[in-house]
Amino acid sequence: MQKKILLLSTGGTIASVVSEAGLVPKESGEQLINMLGELPYDITVEDILQLDSSNIQPEEWKLIAEKIYENRNKYDGIVVSHGTDTMAYTASMLSFMLQNINIPVVLTGSQVPINVVLSDAPDNLKLAFAAAASCHPNIYLAFDRKVMLGCRSVKVRTINFDAFESVNVPPVARVTSDGLVFSDQNVPKNTKDMKDTTLNTSINPHVSLVKLFPGFDPNLLFAMVESGCQGIVIEAYGLGGMNYIRRNMVAAIGKLIRRGIPIIATSQCLYERSDLTKYEVGREALLEGAISARDMTSESAITKLMWGLGQNWDVHQISDFFNTDVAGEVTIEKDDNLQID
Amino acid sequence: MQKKILLLSTGGTIASVVSEAGLVPKESGEQLINMLGELPYDITVEDILQLDSSNIQPEEWKLIAEKIYENRNKYDGIVVSHGTDTMAYTASMLSFMLQNINIPVVLTGSQVPINVVLSDAPDNLKLAFAAAASCHPNIYLAFDRKVMLGCRSVKVRTINFDAFESVNVPPVARVTSDGLVFSDQNVPKNTKDMKDTTLNTSINPHVSLVKLFPGFDPNLLFAMVESGCQGIVIEAYGLGGMNYIRRNMVAAIGKLIRRGIPIIATSQCLYERSDLTKYEVGREALLEGAISARDMTSESAITKLMWGLGQNWDVHQISDFFNTDVAGEVTIEKDDNLQID
Repeated sequence: MQKKILLLSTGGTIASVVSEAGLVPKESGEQLINMLGELPYDITVEDILQLDSSNIQPEEWKLIAEKIYENRNKYDGIVVSHGTDTMAYTASMLSFMLQNINIPVVLTGSQVPINVVLSDAPDNLKLAFAAAASCHPNIYLAFDRKVMLGCRSVKVRTINFDAFESVNVPPVARVTSDGLVFSDQNVPKNTKDMKDTTLNTSINPHVSLVKLFPGFDPNLLFAMVESGCQGIVIEAYGLGGMNYIRRNMVAAIGKLIRRGIPIIATSQCLYERSDLTKYEVGREALLEGAISARDMTSESAITKLMWGLGQNWDVHQISDFFNTDVAGEVTIEKDDNLQID
Repeated sequence: MQKKILLLSTGGTIASVVSEAGLVPKESGEQLINMLGELPYDITVEDILQLDSSNIQPEEWKLIAEKIYENRNKYDGIVVSHGTDTMAYTASMLSFMLQNINIPVVLTGSQVPINVVLSDAPDNLKLAFAAAASCHPNIYLAFDRKVMLGCRSVKVRTINFDAFESVNVPPVARVTSDGLVFSDQNVPKNTKDMKDTTLNTSINPHVSLVKLFPGFDPNLLFAMVESGCQGIVIEAYGLGGMNYIRRNMVAAIGKLIRRGIPIIATSQCLYERSDLTKYEVGREALLEGAISARDMTSESAITKLMWGLGQNWDVHQISDFFNTDVAGEVTIEKDDNLQID
């Protein structure tokens, strides 16, 4: 029997048409499906949004999560068509809002609208349907012949078709002449215990994502907090180092943490992990209470922080949450407690 | 006759030793040279700083630029040993502070201290000396068998030796069995006109680098400006899109530009260009006066903004400056004036 797949369409380049104001998302999910020809799945379509993904924000995350939750027992898998610009953020947030999801949910989109002859949209959509029909339950992003864990994906290119990369873990599956070939090491963690799917869309978006640069004035952190910001992810240097002479980031972080503002330290380097224990400059920050994001993407770190703050957790609970792997977003090594001996 | 090369040492991992507090930069330039064995250059060493590069800031940029300027007619080339964390920022800023530099200046460092057996430091240092002896005049970064234009380099990895990438242009040269092999297309721009080297270290570090994420509160931009920030680089989505429904980034940018605060839009995607003309979401920002960073790195965009503001230029002059290629940091296409037809 054919697998039942739901397509939730939200707009994006994939559904865009040329207008006087530039590309604007206009096509329905039905129109997307009509461009694909015959597929071996029993597909149902629902249009839930029609937005350029630059405009997809916390309110839309909630709507998408609720739609997935509502339909999780009616379908074998769900595909979400979505603009590429914020797709990695949405995929990351869905991983926290829909913990222990019981079916595969696959986000996809394209660099070129589907109605353009050489578009990447048909291939990406077909891949997403194949992934929704065959992957373990979890949140994924399918793009350019790769299926990636949603919470590990990052948009790295603006023009070419290989727009997304799976950062710090290999893709879950790749398209080859043998079809969809799965990588063994990438068994989604939350299939093992198979708890009930939970829907929890309580998030606190009053956070900030700061990319450190030489000359950055730590007073800007306080200005943000005074303006309502309740948690900060800092993309620090290399393994997580920050300046402490003259402009003292480390002292500022200590003050903010003592005021109850969680500070997450990640690396502005796209690849590989942050490790605050290695250099003096990182240890100082750790001693002040900075929370390491380890090998998480910034997209996962900022959405995890919003979700944690949405539970009304304090700095210690947020720290424990960041020491926990929820959906495969972070690598926690054995006896890796990021304590300084 | 052997080429005369000056090594300016500033600290960094390359010069670090293990201490109770983690790795700390302690070794002198002389100690670095002693680890290399015989080299076919006439090398002079000067220790100017001994810092982890997380602590290299505008004050150090000025010192390094002044030292290079002082020595530009005494040597055939200059090597600067530097920590990897902020090396791309320093290389970018030197490209603006030392326009039309008359000799090759090559920054290098390593992922592992030079006194460790399997360190990448000896290879990187030797490459930097070879580049300083043979490249056209300009500012470069040499690392892991590649010589890159300083203003195009980005640190992308925290652990492996291929820490740096040349973003959106190929490396200037690579090490092969044939030695240092130069790429033709990458002739540094400022060798053509050979004006006199200028030293201009007037910069304004009161800027901010914001990475956009869904839910970002545009009021944080105003809070930064009220706290003294005089220019902002926004790492927007994809080609440069920003949200304008509910949280209206585009309107906020318009207001700030009318208050005389230049707003530079770049992409949070590491590779390829931003192009605000393509989507409705980008055009809106352009109409409000946002300045496109095109295919520049964020490191180049933020240092170029600091330097431009240091000249006391207004928004229009900053915009003209960003429409000019100073040292190879940006690709300006013919009839690419980023106007909407």
